[in-house]
Amino acid sequence: MKNIVSFGEIMLRLSPPGSDRLFQGNFFRYCFGGSEANVAVLCSELGLNSAYVTKLPDNRIGGAAKTELKEYGVDVSRIMTGGGRMGAYYYEKGAGVRPAVCVYDREYSAFSLSKREEYDWKKILDTADAFHFSGITAALSDELAAACLDACKYAKEHGIKVFCDLNYRSKLWSKEKARDVICKILPCVDVFISSVYQAVDIFELDADLSDTDAACIEAAKQLTKQFGFEAVALTVRKTYSASKNGFYGMIYKNGGAYFSRKYETEIVDRVGSGDAFDGALIYSLLNNEPEQRAVDLASAAAVLKHSVEGDFLITALKDIEDAVKIGGITQR
Amino acid sequence: MKNIVSFGEIMLRLSPPGSDRLFQGNFFRYCFGGSEANVAVLCSELGLNSAYVTKLPDNRIGGAAKTELKEYGVDVSRIMTGGGRMGAYYYEKGAGVRPAVCVYDREYSAFSLSKREEYDWKKILDTADAFHFSGITAALSDELAAACLDACKYAKEHGIKVFCDLNYRSKLWSKEKARDVICKILPCVDVFISSVYQAVDIFELDADLSDTDAACIEAAKQLTKQFGFEAVALTVRKTYSASKNGFYGMIYKNGGAYFSRKYETEIVDRVGSGDAFDGALIYSLLNNEPEQRAVDLASAAAVLKHSVEGDFLITALKDIEDAVKIGGITQR
Amino acid sequence: MKNIVSFGEIMLRLSPPGSDRLFQGNFFRYCFGGSEANVAVLCSELGLNSAYVTKLPDNRIGGAAKTELKEYGVDVSRIMTGGGRMGAYYYEKGAGVRPAVCVYDREYSAFSLSKREEYDWKKILDTADAFHFSGITAALSDELAAACLDACKYAKEHGIKVFCDLNYRSKLWSKEKARDVICKILPCVDVFISSVYQAVDIFELDADLSDTDAACIEAAKQLTKQFGFEAVALTVRKTYSASKNGFYGMIYKNGGAYFSRKYETEIVDRVGSGDAFDGALIYSLLNNEPEQRAVDLASAAAVLKHSVEGDFLITALKDIEDAVKIGGITQR
Amino acid sequence: MKNIVSFGEIMLRLSPPGSDRLFQGNFFRYCFGGSEANVAVLCSELGLNSAYVTKLPDNRIGGAAKTELKEYGVDVSRIMTGGGRMGAYYYEKGAGVRPAVCVYDREYSAFSLSKREEYDWKKILDTADAFHFSGITAALSDELAAACLDACKYAKEHGIKVFCDLNYRSKLWSKEKARDVICKILPCVDVFISSVYQAVDIFELDADLSDTDAACIEAAKQLTKQFGFEAVALTVRKTYSASKNGFYGMIYKNGGAYFSRKYETEIVDRVGSGDAFDGALIYSLLNNEPEQRAVDLASAAAVLKHSVEGDFLITALKDIEDAVKIGGITQR
Amino acid sequence: MKNIVSFGEIMLRLSPPGSDRLFQGNFFRYCFGGSEANVAVLCSELGLNSAYVTKLPDNRIGGAAKTELKEYGVDVSRIMTGGGRMGAYYYEKGAGVRPAVCVYDREYSAFSLSKREEYDWKKILDTADAFHFSGITAALSDELAAACLDACKYAKEHGIKVFCDLNYRSKLWSKEKARDVICKILPCVDVFISSVYQAVDIFELDADLSDTDAACIEAAKQLTKQFGFEAVALTVRKTYSASKNGFYGMIYKNGGAYFSRKYETEIVDRVGSGDAFDGALIYSLLNNEPEQRAVDLASAAAVLKHSVEGDFLITALKDIEDAVKIGGITQR
Amino acid sequence: MKNIVSFGEIMLRLSPPGSDRLFQGNFFRYCFGGSEANVAVLCSELGLNSAYVTKLPDNRIGGAAKTELKEYGVDVSRIMTGGGRMGAYYYEKGAGVRPAVCVYDREYSAFSLSKREEYDWKKILDTADAFHFSGITAALSDELAAACLDACKYAKEHGIKVFCDLNYRSKLWSKEKARDVICKILPCVDVFISSVYQAVDIFELDADLSDTDAACIEAAKQLTKQFGFEAVALTVRKTYSASKNGFYGMIYKNGGAYFSRKYETEIVDRVGSGDAFDGALIYSLLNNEPEQRAVDLASAAAVLKHSVEGDFLITALKDIEDAVKIGGITQR
Repeated sequence: MKNIVSFGEIMLRLSPPGSDRLFQGNFFRYCFGGSEANVAVLCSELGLNSAYVTKLPDNRIGGAAKTELKEYGVDVSRIMTGGGRMGAYYYEKGAGVRPAVCVYDREYSAFSLSKREEYDWKKILDTADAFHFSGITAALSDELAAACLDACKYAKEHGIKVFCDLNYRSKLWSKEKARDVICKILPCVDVFISSVYQAVDIFELDADLSDTDAACIEAAKQLTKQFGFEAVALTVRKTYSASKNGFYGMIYKNGGAYFSRKYETEIVDRVGSGDAFDGALIYSLLNNEPEQRAVDLASAAAVLKHSVEGDFLITALKDIEDAVKIGGITQR
Repeated sequence: MKNIVSFGEIMLRLSPPGSDRLFQGNFFRYCFGGSEANVAVLCSELGLNSAYVTKLPDNRIGGAAKTELKEYGVDVSRIMTGGGRMGAYYYEKGAGVRPAVCVYDREYSAFSLSKREEYDWKKILDTADAFHFSGITAALSDELAAACLDACKYAKEHGIKVFCDLNYRSKLWSKEKARDVICKILPCVDVFISSVYQAVDIFELDADLSDTDAACIEAAKQLTKQFGFEAVALTVRKTYSASKNGFYGMIYKNGGAYFSRKYETEIVDRVGSGDAFDGALIYSLLNNEPEQRAVDLASAAAVLKHSVEGDFLITALKDIEDAVKIGGITQR
Repeated sequence: MKNIVSFGEIMLRLSPPGSDRLFQGNFFRYCFGGSEANVAVLCSELGLNSAYVTKLPDNRIGGAAKTELKEYGVDVSRIMTGGGRMGAYYYEKGAGVRPAVCVYDREYSAFSLSKREEYDWKKILDTADAFHFSGITAALSDELAAACLDACKYAKEHGIKVFCDLNYRSKLWSKEKARDVICKILPCVDVFISSVYQAVDIFELDADLSDTDAACIEAAKQLTKQFGFEAVALTVRKTYSASKNGFYGMIYKNGGAYFSRKYETEIVDRVGSGDAFDGALIYSLLNNEPEQRAVDLASAAAVLKHSVEGDFLITALKDIEDAVKIGGITQR
Repeated sequence: MKNIVSFGEIMLRLSPPGSDRLFQGNFFRYCFGGSEANVAVLCSELGLNSAYVTKLPDNRIGGAAKTELKEYGVDVSRIMTGGGRMGAYYYEKGAGVRPAVCVYDREYSAFSLSKREEYDWKKILDTADAFHFSGITAALSDELAAACLDACKYAKEHGIKVFCDLNYRSKLWSKEKARDVICKILPCVDVFISSVYQAVDIFELDADLSDTDAACIEAAKQLTKQFGFEAVALTVRKTYSASKNGFYGMIYKNGGAYFSRKYETEIVDRVGSGDAFDGALIYSLLNNEPEQRAVDLASAAAVLKHSVEGDFLITALKDIEDAVKIGGITQR
Repeated sequence: MKNIVSFGEIMLRLSPPGSDRLFQGNFFRYCFGGSEANVAVLCSELGLNSAYVTKLPDNRIGGAAKTELKEYGVDVSRIMTGGGRMGAYYYEKGAGVRPAVCVYDREYSAFSLSKREEYDWKKILDTADAFHFSGITAALSDELAAACLDACKYAKEHGIKVFCDLNYRSKLWSKEKARDVICKILPCVDVFISSVYQAVDIFELDADLSDTDAACIEAAKQLTKQFGFEAVALTVRKTYSASKNGFYGMIYKNGGAYFSRKYETEIVDRVGSGDAFDGALIYSLLNNEPEQRAVDLASAAAVLKHSVEGDFLITALKDIEDAVKIGGITQR
Repeated sequence: MKNIVSFGEIMLRLSPPGSDRLFQGNFFRYCFGGSEANVAVLCSELGLNSAYVTKLPDNRIGGAAKTELKEYGVDVSRIMTGGGRMGAYYYEKGAGVRPAVCVYDREYSAFSLSKREEYDWKKILDTADAFHFSGITAALSDELAAACLDACKYAKEHGIKVFCDLNYRSKLWSKEKARDVICKILPCVDVFISSVYQAVDIFELDADLSDTDAACIEAAKQLTKQFGFEAVALTVRKTYSASKNGFYGMIYKNGGAYFSRKYETEIVDRVGSGDAFDGALIYSLLNNEPEQRAVDLASAAAVLKHSVEGDFLITALKDIEDAVKIGGITQR
């Protein structure tokens, strides 16, 4: 069984029930989540030895987050505790023409206040086969951006495969800052994952987004050429409304482009669908699955996530395989 | 900032949670609402000085209704309290092929028992720039029909712009009665709003409803000719199911017809979508927005309302403008 | 008023709220249900004298099930109580590409442990005009399969019309076993109901399912020829996703095939939609409604059921007739 | 089995969940209830043939009330439907020093608008062994007071035992009006039930309430002397707080006074505890139970009711007997 | 009507439902609150012109807090918005021997990051008759401690009555720090309020707490002597369990000590009971109520608050007066 | 860290919310629990290496139970899966004089159908320092009684300390059967735990239960003499109502009797309080805590459990120590 280490934040998420608006009623439904944590949980569910690296406050909120990760089999022994608070975010899911709303309350979190020196990558990545992080981690602070770079360099030197999801968030940093920081890290990255729209936008690629299939191939070619990636995975989402989306993905490797089925799906909770894509992709590539199966599983996992409340996709491989086969459509 | 005064009832609404049927389970979700009150709240949210005129029972139920209006900035100083009960209605939202169900319990309400003489329009409309009511108010009693007429006459004489939404409700009066009463009031009305289907039906207009665009123009022309309206706004709804509707609107003014985008939308709660249309329209016309922007905002507000539980649309202008721009559809 | 007796189990159903997954959160929404019980309840709602025959445990769970049937007017005087437990099932409704999940916990139930000799059909069917059961009852045990055969033979001999829904459940028995058992009973059956897919599959009929209309006719012809049915009713479901299905039905009688409208419907709860088809069909045929109206009502009832949470469709005939007329689609 | 007919209103009750205040949050928990209806339901649960007489609106709210009574075995065949609305009340349970709050919304109900002539007592009381009503019914209108008198006279003449609970409600009528009306009816009453405090207050009895035991005996003596009752049952409640009460009862018959145990009890929902007293008393006296057992069962039922949410006490005789025996106190 | 200005934080409070533990289940019930805000709301409910001074983040969370204050009539025009986050706290209410748990997440809030210079007391206290704050505000930062001192000095100079509640919180600062800071402010304070235990502890008074009545008088004397207060109000709480407390208060003024009734009360939510004491005390003293009535209302308000979920006591003066009279105990 | 192995069932528990009755409303709150599982979870929380031995069905229900144990750190590697169902029980908590109601649905569970031979105690107890079971396990089947005996014999021979809680359940077996079976096992038991009432009843001890302190000592002496226990722990519960209980415990060891404080406590959920006693006792004795501290911790844990919803007591040692110190009572 392969060992994967993910590096990022985990936050408390507060949502109004169902399709209600924030502060309608007097209850929040809560869960824990965060891009890299979501990936770590799915990797664990799919059978990888999945460890999470973060820093949590030393109180009952941080303790509850750790318990949640443990429940899904994630190795929490590398999680530090200490100064700062628990990051949180408020999330209103939206419905119909009313878009989702996300309000961050993640400043001053224990993780975002943590220092580069606190992360001893030699020890953390001791037995790792793979390392995974996303642009969100690098966006939280210069210290964390440096920590990401440290980790990737260490991984590169020690044959540990590096997965990076661009995950650009305009609320966290500017496009320019993101490009500068990420471009320094990408030479150490083996597999790069992104929304095709974000990739084209951030790296100013030359690709016509009116034909998303062609744009995926073109963007992947240019990224591979620039950064020397082993593989590039790109996703395409069409937002018909807050209640219905289209989604598909592509893997580009060794000059070949592999596309998944193009899904259309009703939405229970869209958060974490990109992370589910990452998790199933990492699982597939670490297990040397063929590229077609890898992108099929990754896209099916992403689409499945739209049907599940909360940040995490808790699912068995078989359920994802079923979604690949039937796309949810049968006749009886 | 313009001053708008709305005149109507506000009721307690009792609904089963989600898509449940009435009396399934043992909880009601409640809110307050009523056609003119819904308009008053949106006008306030959009920045108008919005006052509500009604009569409430002098108990904790009436008090809670008033508090609710205050919370959204509506001026409640013209609301009377006294004899009678709080009007209420039971509402089952429906789903799929199962249509919504509405059971009124509004008889003997303080408002419906109130007398024409209780409304001192000189005082009530003292600083008003506009007056708004709908056919529902006129339908509740002969006294209230007379009060509407009094108000409109006073407004006409004092240069206060009158907005009237037909809002025909077959549970409250017959088509004949409605036509008789409303036709007496309409000569004092400046802006007339209605579903095109109801307008054609009640006023027996000569318009072919199989082509709704043409029917809107034709109906508006005939209404304008008959009543001398400054503007007519008509709405078109297609009910595919209780979970999905189509919606758009038109403004006809100075011989020009301005249509909004044709929306299709999933439904969380359809109640009050016409009122949201009115609110945004009133806001736009009082602020002398161009006709195209007025109908765009009005239709977008109506469609947004479909996504929000309860009678009120609590929203910022910017959210409505966003809905105009993207119709909820983006790509990422 | 005609008397109908239904024979089957009634179980406690445990579902997570809304579209949640099993064991997400810490609440189950529960109801009672079971294929034949669902039919019995709808028959009662539509005005038939509807009696249910089953065996329940002698505890508060069994008592609550009986109370539930009583609430909807079902005659529970033929229900026995005694050894064994209350059957139960866990049901996750699914959403989008995530399919529904059903986990049975019905083994060792009082009903499934009951013996052929416990059912005195002479007494049970004393005043019956019709008898109804489904393949599920026959699948629960050899004793219950024998009891079904006893009942059908008695009915045949006494001019009581027998309705049988194939209701094949692969979790309960193999296709071979089902075919063997059911084929012995079918000669006593007057009206046979099934999904066209299951009918073709179990009875290995020669019908091309790529054209479902033609397949329905062909399957009905072959079944009628083989078993001498008075009528065959077949249903066709298209599962676009767990949130959206297509559905229609056909009745084949005296060489004529009558198709209902083809519906597409959003889904609140799909369980019991086939049973609603049965209930409205039985009501129609016992009241000698024309075949077209029978299949129209049956399909509309089935589609309506998709919009109602729980196993039972509690509805008035008028609501079903409305659904026939408008299919939920109107314009305003 | 004895036949009892109860006469009164049944209302929809709306309460905030748990110990919340009215209009805290956005949900009401609802149930149906009303003093006489509560008695009718307990009588049915205890095995009497219990029929309810009232008038309900002809809509889904009235229908739901009827279904609720049916569920508990109450004979609803004498219930009329027609003009007027469904009575309702809002109930906040209180907690600690915060007292319960009750807001009536029962004016203009179908029942309170019903006329004396609508009640054909010959038919209604055809097979009755007993008739039961309370002062609330008489308080609702002069017509209903007259109907009560009609019923009691008819009962007196035909050997039907009459039970009357004073149930004075200051929100419905003045003490003077109550005394006048009730005093005219009481000569036809066989068993009179009241809070000792209310009895002393309304009938201006000469009894020292600082010694409640003695006051009960004294009040019963004076009432018996004045009205010739067969039996008088009086109850004593000590309100320590909204969360804790003391309660006991007495029966006075043939010159003997029988007291129940003095209970102290935590409170889930106090509404209907007096009605539970009535129900168990009626059951006991109609079955010729000894006076001591009658008052024991009546008080235990009243105390049990404090532990049950809603207006109805749904319980088996055995549970009441257990409460008599152990008063809820055991050692393990 | 007197004008009161309160100065402090308002936070989002997250609690598990009912008596659940933090992170049991997946819902939080939320409300807004904070010691001084709770006082401001009650002052407004009782009829004072009550304004709140704080700083909120410029997002939907801060906006919702402001809306909440507006709903209860608090003047929010002096509230600033800007940098920093919304303070929050997690609160588990406890039950029986399990004590309440409070986890603060208020660091880096917009208020706690605000600077002394941001508060222009001349403008803020322009029309004020009274100013109120508590030790919590002073504990949040040196800047806010300085702001408190500025405000008190300004008030002193301009004849504005200053109310200060000690409100010592060991999670915010040490006893030594608290004493140092508060002692500098107290010379400007007119009315000082505290738990007698905290007062004795922080100011190292010479009072024997085993006799709490005597200790109250002794502590008030010493405090008055040291700081020259116009009045001192002290409270005494006995925590029998998380579900039951005793509570009473004393006012010491002009050498006289006035004690309220000693209450024992079941607990729904204890948070804000001290603030309710403050609110009713301020109301009473600003309206020149006699000392006995002032302490009676203050203690009754505090005890009433134990029965109400959330931080705010929303109540009418009449309800508090009733609680004074009957202490919640009546007989019927 | 000591290793403890517990042997028993784990069931799904279904309860109505709060103090509702079974089948009031349409929701169950669920959790997992069972006497020995509850002990295993608390042992784990307190820091022991705690393993659970049981057999679960191979479906999502069994999987969820296992996940729940894992969440609290219990070693589930010895849990078998296979034939049979998940045991369940319905639990109504009661309130005031209404006692709790428990309906078992545990027949035919995978565990109760498991065979003696399936338990390889050599392997299971390989590294164990202690073994724990209760009379419930022995009561489920003769096979499981034999398995208990096998385990205890193996433990005795290998110096593994055996803890046994009598846990007599009259719904599972008769007193005579229980005595016969348990008496055969007790010679291998080191520490015996029981309610003093059950111990006296089942073993027909000569002890006067009207003086529970003396009875505890006398019962412990006689049991120790008869079975040669190293220690006996007895508990005393006074049930004042379903909402309030008294509780204390005693340890008898080497001729000394150590009593805990006598608690009185409000009740949220009484289930598992005896198991909490066991868990804290096992923790204390395995860590060689003094007898007084052991019984203090055990009783405090039991009392704390009354305040926590669900079967498990999730708590830190420190919380139990606090409960010992203050018994929940403080002054402020």
